[in-house]
Amino acid sequence: MQALHNPHDFAFASDNYSGIHPQILAAIATANGGHQPAYGADVYTEQLKQCIRQQFGEQAQAFPVFNGTGANVMALQALLPRYGAVICADSAHIHNDEGVAPEYVAGIKIFAVATVDGKLTPELIAKQAWGWGNEHRAQARAVYISQTTELGTCYSVAEIRAIADYCHQHGMWLYMDGARLANAAAHLNASLHDITTAAGVDMVSFGGTKNGIMLGECIVVLNPALADSMVYLRKINMQLGSKMRFISAQFLALLENDLWRTLASHSNAMAERLYQAVKNIEGVHITQPRQSNAVFAVLPAAAVHVLHQQFHFYDWNESSGEVRWMTSFDTTAEQVDAFAAAIQAACQEAA
Amino acid sequence: MQALHNPHDFAFASDNYSGIHPQILAAIATANGGHQPAYGADVYTEQLKQCIRQQFGEQAQAFPVFNGTGANVMALQALLPRYGAVICADSAHIHNDEGVAPEYVAGIKIFAVATVDGKLTPELIAKQAWGWGNEHRAQARAVYISQTTELGTCYSVAEIRAIADYCHQHGMWLYMDGARLANAAAHLNASLHDITTAAGVDMVSFGGTKNGIMLGECIVVLNPALADSMVYLRKINMQLGSKMRFISAQFLALLENDLWRTLASHSNAMAERLYQAVKNIEGVHITQPRQSNAVFAVLPAAAVHVLHQQFHFYDWNESSGEVRWMTSFDTTAEQVDAFAAAIQAACQEAA
Amino acid sequence: MQALHNPHDFAFASDNYSGIHPQILAAIATANGGHQPAYGADVYTEQLKQCIRQQFGEQAQAFPVFNGTGANVMALQALLPRYGAVICADSAHIHNDEGVAPEYVAGIKIFAVATVDGKLTPELIAKQAWGWGNEHRAQARAVYISQTTELGTCYSVAEIRAIADYCHQHGMWLYMDGARLANAAAHLNASLHDITTAAGVDMVSFGGTKNGIMLGECIVVLNPALADSMVYLRKINMQLGSKMRFISAQFLALLENDLWRTLASHSNAMAERLYQAVKNIEGVHITQPRQSNAVFAVLPAAAVHVLHQQFHFYDWNESSGEVRWMTSFDTTAEQVDAFAAAIQAACQEAA
Amino acid sequence: MQALHNPHDFAFASDNYSGIHPQILAAIATANGGHQPAYGADVYTEQLKQCIRQQFGEQAQAFPVFNGTGANVMALQALLPRYGAVICADSAHIHNDEGVAPEYVAGIKIFAVATVDGKLTPELIAKQAWGWGNEHRAQARAVYISQTTELGTCYSVAEIRAIADYCHQHGMWLYMDGARLANAAAHLNASLHDITTAAGVDMVSFGGTKNGIMLGECIVVLNPALADSMVYLRKINMQLGSKMRFISAQFLALLENDLWRTLASHSNAMAERLYQAVKNIEGVHITQPRQSNAVFAVLPAAAVHVLHQQFHFYDWNESSGEVRWMTSFDTTAEQVDAFAAAIQAACQEAA
Repeated sequence: MQALHNPHDFAFASDNYSGIHPQILAAIATANGGHQPAYGADVYTEQLKQCIRQQFGEQAQAFPVFNGTGANVMALQALLPRYGAVICADSAHIHNDEGVAPEYVAGIKIFAVATVDGKLTPELIAKQAWGWGNEHRAQARAVYISQTTELGTCYSVAEIRAIADYCHQHGMWLYMDGARLANAAAHLNASLHDITTAAGVDMVSFGGTKNGIMLGECIVVLNPALADSMVYLRKINMQLGSKMRFISAQFLALLENDLWRTLASHSNAMAERLYQAVKNIEGVHITQPRQSNAVFAVLPAAAVHVLHQQFHFYDWNESSGEVRWMTSFDTTAEQVDAFAAAIQAACQEAA
Repeated sequence: MQALHNPHDFAFASDNYSGIHPQILAAIATANGGHQPAYGADVYTEQLKQCIRQQFGEQAQAFPVFNGTGANVMALQALLPRYGAVICADSAHIHNDEGVAPEYVAGIKIFAVATVDGKLTPELIAKQAWGWGNEHRAQARAVYISQTTELGTCYSVAEIRAIADYCHQHGMWLYMDGARLANAAAHLNASLHDITTAAGVDMVSFGGTKNGIMLGECIVVLNPALADSMVYLRKINMQLGSKMRFISAQFLALLENDLWRTLASHSNAMAERLYQAVKNIEGVHITQPRQSNAVFAVLPAAAVHVLHQQFHFYDWNESSGEVRWMTSFDTTAEQVDAFAAAIQAACQEAA
Repeated sequence: MQALHNPHDFAFASDNYSGIHPQILAAIATANGGHQPAYGADVYTEQLKQCIRQQFGEQAQAFPVFNGTGANVMALQALLPRYGAVICADSAHIHNDEGVAPEYVAGIKIFAVATVDGKLTPELIAKQAWGWGNEHRAQARAVYISQTTELGTCYSVAEIRAIADYCHQHGMWLYMDGARLANAAAHLNASLHDITTAAGVDMVSFGGTKNGIMLGECIVVLNPALADSMVYLRKINMQLGSKMRFISAQFLALLENDLWRTLASHSNAMAERLYQAVKNIEGVHITQPRQSNAVFAVLPAAAVHVLHQQFHFYDWNESSGEVRWMTSFDTTAEQVDAFAAAIQAACQEAA
Repeated sequence: MQALHNPHDFAFASDNYSGIHPQILAAIATANGGHQPAYGADVYTEQLKQCIRQQFGEQAQAFPVFNGTGANVMALQALLPRYGAVICADSAHIHNDEGVAPEYVAGIKIFAVATVDGKLTPELIAKQAWGWGNEHRAQARAVYISQTTELGTCYSVAEIRAIADYCHQHGMWLYMDGARLANAAAHLNASLHDITTAAGVDMVSFGGTKNGIMLGECIVVLNPALADSMVYLRKINMQLGSKMRFISAQFLALLENDLWRTLASHSNAMAERLYQAVKNIEGVHITQPRQSNAVFAVLPAAAVHVLHQQFHFYDWNESSGEVRWMTSFDTTAEQVDAFAAAIQAACQEAA
């Protein structure tokens, strides 16, 4: 098969526009050849389970799946009864970007709460955390937080702990969507264990696709009470890969020598570089603290229009003119500088 | 990452025990590097759509997904109303091997019909094809057939056409589970178009994983009336890959120079070699015609026990002692011969 | 409102063609007037809970619902995990007469087993009771039996006990669809407790609509371990009546002085009268033992045709010519005799 | 069965605390006796279909069901594809009072919008009415409004028309939850046709239970394009009553000589009487316009506490101290006056 694209193309659209890190691609090749038992009974998946325990604690159990929506929907099923609801920020991925999957597949009611920065707090959760025992109201039994959030912000360990404590005091489980968990750990300079198990999280997804993997996420069950149904739920959620060795091998490469941290740190650093380069440009208004691999900003519509001719990035809120610029493991300093220069030029022109 | 397995291990368990064909792995590498739009807006997916039209006809539309269960469940949703039922053989994958996914995710009633060889006929379908307009009975609006079947048998083009005609006369759609469609086309020496579009099939899955791909299936909508909801259904079924270019690239490699046919023909030939080598062994009773890459046989329990010490294969029916031996794109003549010799020895010993 | 029908019309179609027993209608009037708390917090529902305990045992818990499909689907949800399957006879109401409700609403896989008389046995259940721990197979965790069956047959207490023991030995719950439980108790000359709690049944529906009630069924949870989710499941299954006092009052009247037994015994007796009158008619072939309020028979197509001009009854199996004749609490001996005479005449004419 | 309650008890809790209007109870008795075809093939249901056409227009089609949650959930299924979302006020019954039924049974995403008075407008709907064609976002294809609203307010015909126009311009259907449709028609002094069909509503539920019926709601399909799936959806939503004649007969009585309007007008008038009696009491702050049979007010916590000792009514918002006082078809002027006097006394005491 011939290449159809230019491997030097770059964008600030999403960390899933990038490809596969070379070491991860090499791991796929290494795991290739010969026959291995299907559906997770292979040696690479076995090894992954052990590596996950090393990262998240001895009680942690790993369940590789295909994608983030699958991980979220399946995890919430494990946490909720059939009549259960989840409380989340109204910017949450499960509420905005997964179609009707949480409701359609899992039958879950979502109670969404408005936030300023994508982060829940016990006070915000309390707005919807009530009505237990009242059969007319969906029973809130889980809280969903994204780390980092959809707005690029990052919970501190203390903030997570406060939410976990609130959840457990009120009979709710805490689920963390860790599609960008690596970026959070890098930003906080903390271990994966610190920001999940040690902070009271009950279940987390450890994202791979947004951090250099070809395809794959890994649900990590931190509270052993929740593990029993996982293999069955993975199957009925159509997230059970037959040649699982290739998903597991990618994660092994990602975990080896903390490649995940190296990649996420780089991605975060590139966003910081962009932030520093544009924060003082006249016409650019930064809307969220830079705490991961994204910069959110409002700038003149004319400038946005000009920039869209040259670069892929997302309009986050068309009415306010807010845009999202996102870096990836393979974003280079030169790309950032070129983009920042273009932003400057576009804003000057628009002024 | 270090290799953890012996790349010379082989088995007769399933065609998903094997790995990735080198040309397909190379295609992943070729598609790597730089940024490409996510969720199928990339150039490789665009190219795949065109290649699928070349194979299945101009009206064909391709929707790559993660796995076969996802493909089946999602396709049936596209074919059925909320109150719909599907008729299938009682050996069907959707009835036996997908957990509760068809019912749980899609809310589908399955009417399963007993067959001798895994193949439906209009007469067999008619046993459940009734009750339209009666609100008390689930409305049968689709028929599911597997090509090749779960029992290794293969529908002829005429048989498919007869089923399609029956379906359409009775207001039902015909869906074909093509997890092993390549093996069928190879066995029939027919084109993919011949055994699907030309035979009246409305929707088919074109399997990749069981024919040398790392991960991926491709739903092909042959009846344009059924295409509108597919992108939404793929999302809510959690089958939408973000870095879709890598699934599409694998299929491009599989389609290039009909690699799919080469691989499937080889796999079929290895099963035929095995069949010829064992069919006359005393104690071996072949239970299904060899029409794809599997041999089904009953042999003495003691022989089965001995063979399980050396080789991976599946007990198909523990009460009857039936076993399934399956070959793959990478099965070699030497492996077949060694296995056949072991079967002979085990049967002799058991006699 | 004027009457639009002739209150002397009668039929042998179904016990839900009949109306409301006068004492039950009187109970509705008695419960009327003034305000009572909604959704089951009223005094009649409270009293019903106590009466149910008297009938089914101290641990029994009553949950009135609207109809039989609602009762069955909701009960199975209480018994099954999200990845669960239920084993039933292939003549079961949940498989044939509830549309896609069990699959669509509850996400349940049904494993249907062929029977000769609508009754399961441990041996028949065993055909589908396997595969626990195998994520690819729906997990059979409940068995559904109808008492009396859809074919008018009746399990003995010993037969129920044998099934219950088998279920519990294999980690499955036993649910009994008691739409005609009263007819079974009357036929067996046993108490409701004898044929449910004492026989090992875990949950049962106590039918009202087919025994003289206007509208209502009552789920009775016999195994307290299963009760916790019931109020929530009733709500999400849309089976929670606001003016529940009127459903409960009907059941109170039905239970008072064992009116339920009086009515069911009469209905059974009318079926027996019909059976005795027709069993020796030339051309009439009785197909099922008469063990409740139905007679199943095959007779000449021409006779069926003639009878349909005069009487409502159901064609049970159009290909075999089997019909179902059903009596009700209000069927009279004169009606039976007239019908039997018509059958005789029709058969003679057809001969 | 003996009476267990005092038929002179009254409350201001809900219009479903009241019982059955005598003419409606009489209709049940009139429809009793003899056999009638089940599941809606009876003469009363046939007559009801005609009466509904008279009230709502010639194209209207009636589908009696058990309760309001059933009506709402089933109607939304008829309006939405599997990947569909509905936009509603955040005070909507489907979002707050139906457990997880809309999500669990129907798989529907709810986009809830904050309002001041429970009423949507095109501007409010527009906040969530976007993203069509974007597979990542649930597709908003229907709008849900309650008439009257959960806050006792009432849409004018012009307001409904504006919403309907907006919906249809944007490819969305308009569904009206008419659990208290009669109260709206009475308040607006309009016909049922005026406020539904003529205003562009596509489907409506015509409530009975909150207006003197024992049990029953009636879905009315106004847009014939939406009717085809209704009988199947009613079955799978477990809302198909077997002895449907008794639900239909109640509606016939309710519709006869516009009894529905008489009852709703009385109920509204009693709420107005209460409103007039309490609006100037010191300490009472009326929070919503009185446009149906409810008065919403904030009063001192101590007064609420005292009143709860004597009367049933609902705390609407515990944090703000808002309460709901609701009248019914059988509320008397004396009851209102006694309640108003008690409110006055409690507020004085609390001052």
